[in-house]
Amino acid sequence: MAVRFQLLNGQNSSGPRRGRLLTKRGSIETPAFMPVGTQATVKTLDPNDLKAVQAEIILSNTYHLYLRPGSDLVREAGGLHAFMGWDRPILTDSGGFQVFSLAALRQITEDGVTFRSHLDGSEHFFSPEKAIQIENDLGADIIMAFDECIPYPADYSYTQRSTSRTSRWARRCKEAHQRPEEQALFGIVQGGMYKDLRLQSVAELGELDFPGYAIGGLSVGEPREVMLEVLEYTAPALPQDKPRYLMGVGSLDYVVEGVARGIDMFDCVLPTRVARHGLALTTQGRLTIRNAQYARDFTSLDPGCSCYVCQSFTRAYLRHLVVAKEILGLRLLSYHNLFFMLQAMQEIRSAIEEGRFTEVYKKYSSYR
Amino acid sequence: MAVRFQLLNGQNSSGPRRGRLLTKRGSIETPAFMPVGTQATVKTLDPNDLKAVQAEIILSNTYHLYLRPGSDLVREAGGLHAFMGWDRPILTDSGGFQVFSLAALRQITEDGVTFRSHLDGSEHFFSPEKAIQIENDLGADIIMAFDECIPYPADYSYTQRSTSRTSRWARRCKEAHQRPEEQALFGIVQGGMYKDLRLQSVAELGELDFPGYAIGGLSVGEPREVMLEVLEYTAPALPQDKPRYLMGVGSLDYVVEGVARGIDMFDCVLPTRVARHGLALTTQGRLTIRNAQYARDFTSLDPGCSCYVCQSFTRAYLRHLVVAKEILGLRLLSYHNLFFMLQAMQEIRSAIEEGRFTEVYKKYSSYR
Repeated sequence: MAVRFQLLNGQNSSGPRRGRLLTKRGSIETPAFMPVGTQATVKTLDPNDLKAVQAEIILSNTYHLYLRPGSDLVREAGGLHAFMGWDRPILTDSGGFQVFSLAALRQITEDGVTFRSHLDGSEHFFSPEKAIQIENDLGADIIMAFDECIPYPADYSYTQRSTSRTSRWARRCKEAHQRPEEQALFGIVQGGMYKDLRLQSVAELGELDFPGYAIGGLSVGEPREVMLEVLEYTAPALPQDKPRYLMGVGSLDYVVEGVARGIDMFDCVLPTRVARHGLALTTQGRLTIRNAQYARDFTSLDPGCSCYVCQSFTRAYLRHLVVAKEILGLRLLSYHNLFFMLQAMQEIRSAIEEGRFTEVYKKYSSYR
Repeated sequence: MAVRFQLLNGQNSSGPRRGRLLTKRGSIETPAFMPVGTQATVKTLDPNDLKAVQAEIILSNTYHLYLRPGSDLVREAGGLHAFMGWDRPILTDSGGFQVFSLAALRQITEDGVTFRSHLDGSEHFFSPEKAIQIENDLGADIIMAFDECIPYPADYSYTQRSTSRTSRWARRCKEAHQRPEEQALFGIVQGGMYKDLRLQSVAELGELDFPGYAIGGLSVGEPREVMLEVLEYTAPALPQDKPRYLMGVGSLDYVVEGVARGIDMFDCVLPTRVARHGLALTTQGRLTIRNAQYARDFTSLDPGCSCYVCQSFTRAYLRHLVVAKEILGLRLLSYHNLFFMLQAMQEIRSAIEEGRFTEVYKKYSSYR
């Protein structure tokens, strides 16, 4: 087995779970947040920075790496870990989300998806077999099945057909997977916003006995209540002894909702993306560093934070860097935001251990 | 005295000199290269990176900091060291070079220079007194007198008038300087490409007994031979017991020419600027990392280099980052280029100590 999952607070079927995901490259304490390194780098940060902010696993994007630099090149480099100099666990998505986001640029058949590159318009084809081959080349510790991420809204009939196809694709992914001892293949539950289709998806994927399950197709534009409702009935239906991953979700207000419903893993570009727009996540809420009020603010970015940035620099300096368009500003904010996010996850884990999850839920469920 | 200078290989009047410049924030081994941190950051790097590449002193630009964030703000922050989190020595230029580079935007009188900001077109006035006041606010360990950097070519008559004015301004700078015990004020020799005017400038500034002297107005577009000729007669005329700083020069082929003629200090944006254009300085010469030949080159950037970047990443990865426009690529190349440059300076210093400067001169005088 490429991964092993331990639940540390018993076999909770629906409430918050405290767990540990063991891989050959290190263990991941759950609930976990995975920083996103789309192009084989978490933007602006190097592997030492990622260790300093205490990232235990990062996510990288199959679609992007396939197009550039090419998964064959990454394989020749010795895999993604060697290529980017990161020796801790990596998860790769399957490219499904990106390919289906290309809207007008793609065409779906039972066999797979034909799409055009966002880089140069060249035509490409992803099938379940092709996606897995690429992920085998990249060599991440956890790889995701190739699915169709259904847009919102979608009618019942389309959702039903797509969800069934995703189940058939999941089987083909499992059969195509060449390195099951080194790479854990997770299935992705679809089903749109329809309870019977979500449960059907869970059942069909469950038959394939994947070492982990993701909930896909959420956070795609649906109202918050709809997403929470889907989570509410989908999560507890998943196998209790396998890790559960809510894809593309990473704002703290949603993370605590996910944890409350038994989700173990999250990923999102949010902390690093907003950093590059000058937004800091702090213990006092979001802070737009560019604002004039910080020009002569010689306090630390987040007085409640112990990270390198908050220990070394003032809001006035960070504002100066951002206003002057200095690259260092983007890096320091990215660093802090990830540290903040990963500290919050640590806080959530401790609270679960100590039976006071309600406290952190209250604290973060309205975090903006 | 804010600085003390020791010559370690005797009182050489014209040959290469091995020295040590002592300041309250640490000592600087000379010949020294100063990385440039124009806007209170050496672009893409943080203070820890600068220490890791073994920078002993950095240069920052008065003109830029005056405009943004403002020297009063930097003073309130506790000075430039506190503002940017750098506790080793800093040298600030006087803004003269930038102000006079604004060509059409400025007007010179005996009193000073009226100019318009490159940021917003607003009108400003720098006099010797004003420049020194700003430098006193910034609080660098070494500050430069306000001079006119004469463009090339310039006729004898203009050069004569300008050089005399720079001498008068130097006196006014010295008189205006409020913190001589904390900040060493260096004079700047002008005189264009005319020997008698250079020697006149040396003599007039010598009367003011500055703790250090810069040679300004070189590397402004004149042919290489002209520059070397001016250096040849100007450097040995300077006081032997004071540090000599050749402003704005930092390509290795010029650095060794300067060292050969008794220069102790250099600065240049070159290593970091070319890095941001994807150019690496290596022991095998310049390398354009974007070139297709490096796409599958899994060797280190510079096999002759022991820096973090060369120990951790391959050319293929660095090329991918640069091609994919990832910020991390700019930082890693900047880091390496500065490390390379500062290692070369170390090599030059060792060679002087060991009486084999000719070797490194031969090695680097044709470095491209």
